[in-house]
Amino acid sequence: MLAERILKGDVRSASRLMRWIDDRDPGAIPELQALFSRTGRARIVGITGSPGTGKSTLTDTLIGAYRRQGKTVGVVAVDPTSPFTGGALLGDRIRMQDHATDPGVFIRSLATRGALGGLSRASSDVVRVLDAMGKDVILVETVGVGQDEVEIVATADVSVVVLVPGLGDEVQAQKAGIMEIADVFVVNKADREGAERVVAEIQSMLSMAAHDARRPEIVQTVAVRDEGIDALLLAIEAFRGRAEDAGLLQQRRRAQAQQLFLDTLQERLMQAVRARVLTPAESERTIARLAARELDPLGAAEDVVRRLLH
Amino acid sequence: MLAERILKGDVRSASRLMRWIDDRDPGAIPELQALFSRTGRARIVGITGSPGTGKSTLTDTLIGAYRRQGKTVGVVAVDPTSPFTGGALLGDRIRMQDHATDPGVFIRSLATRGALGGLSRASSDVVRVLDAMGKDVILVETVGVGQDEVEIVATADVSVVVLVPGLGDEVQAQKAGIMEIADVFVVNKADREGAERVVAEIQSMLSMAAHDARRPEIVQTVAVRDEGIDALLLAIEAFRGRAEDAGLLQQRRRAQAQQLFLDTLQERLMQAVRARVLTPAESERTIARLAARELDPLGAAEDVVRRLLH
Repeated sequence: MLAERILKGDVRSASRLMRWIDDRDPGAIPELQALFSRTGRARIVGITGSPGTGKSTLTDTLIGAYRRQGKTVGVVAVDPTSPFTGGALLGDRIRMQDHATDPGVFIRSLATRGALGGLSRASSDVVRVLDAMGKDVILVETVGVGQDEVEIVATADVSVVVLVPGLGDEVQAQKAGIMEIADVFVVNKADREGAERVVAEIQSMLSMAAHDARRPEIVQTVAVRDEGIDALLLAIEAFRGRAEDAGLLQQRRRAQAQQLFLDTLQERLMQAVRARVLTPAESERTIARLAARELDPLGAAEDVVRRLLH
Repeated sequence: MLAERILKGDVRSASRLMRWIDDRDPGAIPELQALFSRTGRARIVGITGSPGTGKSTLTDTLIGAYRRQGKTVGVVAVDPTSPFTGGALLGDRIRMQDHATDPGVFIRSLATRGALGGLSRASSDVVRVLDAMGKDVILVETVGVGQDEVEIVATADVSVVVLVPGLGDEVQAQKAGIMEIADVFVVNKADREGAERVVAEIQSMLSMAAHDARRPEIVQTVAVRDEGIDALLLAIEAFRGRAEDAGLLQQRRRAQAQQLFLDTLQERLMQAVRARVLTPAESERTIARLAARELDPLGAAEDVVRRLLH
């Protein structure tokens, strides 16, 4: 079993399981089950922002900073990119390979465009493998636009949203969906003109929404020159401390457990349906009748549930 | 029942049902069921692109063009934006209100950020209401980044991807995920410098992926001046014709019916689980034990399925 070897520190088994997860190979399921009791110890930090904000450089710099503290680091870099043009974004993944020879760092890219929610599910599964491997800190880096990315970041203890001066209002608008999930804001490339204006914009937005313990700090960084990274580490720790005191961290971990349980339950229910009621032929017939409007979806679903329960 | 009044042409009932859909009010379910047999006739056109590409103006211009052909038009404008900053993007929705007094046009914005897949589900439900209302053409406009948006566009018969010169490479990278869903490419703001380069980039990308009947046309437009819109209409019709001949359209409609059926089935299964096995108290207990790693998700799910089936 891969899980046993992973718990003994075998990196190749971990890579293999992560590939299974990315491929949605059902073989991953019992392995993840076997690892589950050994998870829940890592500190999980989500890092998100539009392309061009320097997220990857920032992640790279954070890896270095945590390593200097003696912590082991896992990284999940999520590229919601198609295989069609996927090569373009993979370039900056290569940057992180600076750490490739460091046994205290494990980096995994995910680019799956699977079914509904496939990417966020794969990401949280990979996080659990890294957690079971004993990594102290897990960084989950995503391009921060879209429902999937918001869900991925929601699996973190602390979410860092990276902004940058000079991307223009239209690009700023894209960040809208991720503003409210920020626990810490980073204004990266803070040596550029306009950094203070971005800080002011965030502050004015935050003043509209009072969050108390959840009120995010704003940190300015220049990741390419390693500037502001210590302040960022402090802000992440400070948020985590406040979140723990306020019960927010426990609440998030419960929400994560709930999501994982519901996802697993839905998969198992559908397996039971396919095994007992909806054979492939029957499924085909139902879909054809739906497409022809001879059946309606609710009626068809109720018929399946009735037959499943006798 | 709202459905009856909607089928008689009552616009206020349609608005009300769409609000229920957006609010995830369970009252919407029987109404949608009652409307289902009256759907499947409209032509559904998805329009997607990054912010700043002029999608809204293009949609606006398309409405006008279809109206001049005597066709009635429904529009679903999806803003994957948070309520936190949602106001910013709603501005350009107001533009479309030019058509607000035209009874042949019905426009609905959706901004829900519900649970997993909430937005794509709500969008396809609203499309079905517009379809049952008898709209000839339904335009589904989304910001084209992220899994949810890709799924929304996948519910269309024809998907139009809007690009624009001068947004820079980093922004172009964001479009990566939507390039392969394009049936028709629009290079809007084609009077700007660099339009030809964008066309060339698309052509070189397409040359890597031969699609035969699916090979997308590229149309240049200047939506603010109504230029190129007739060519766009022709390209949309031409694609639809080729897709129909090649069986692609039927295949898409089957895939849509399948997705709708599976979504509905999963909801009904979870209702049955909650009614028969997982009371709120029991659910709480399970999640607490999962969060404490006393249970694993698969074991917990299997226990629920076993009890559901006796």
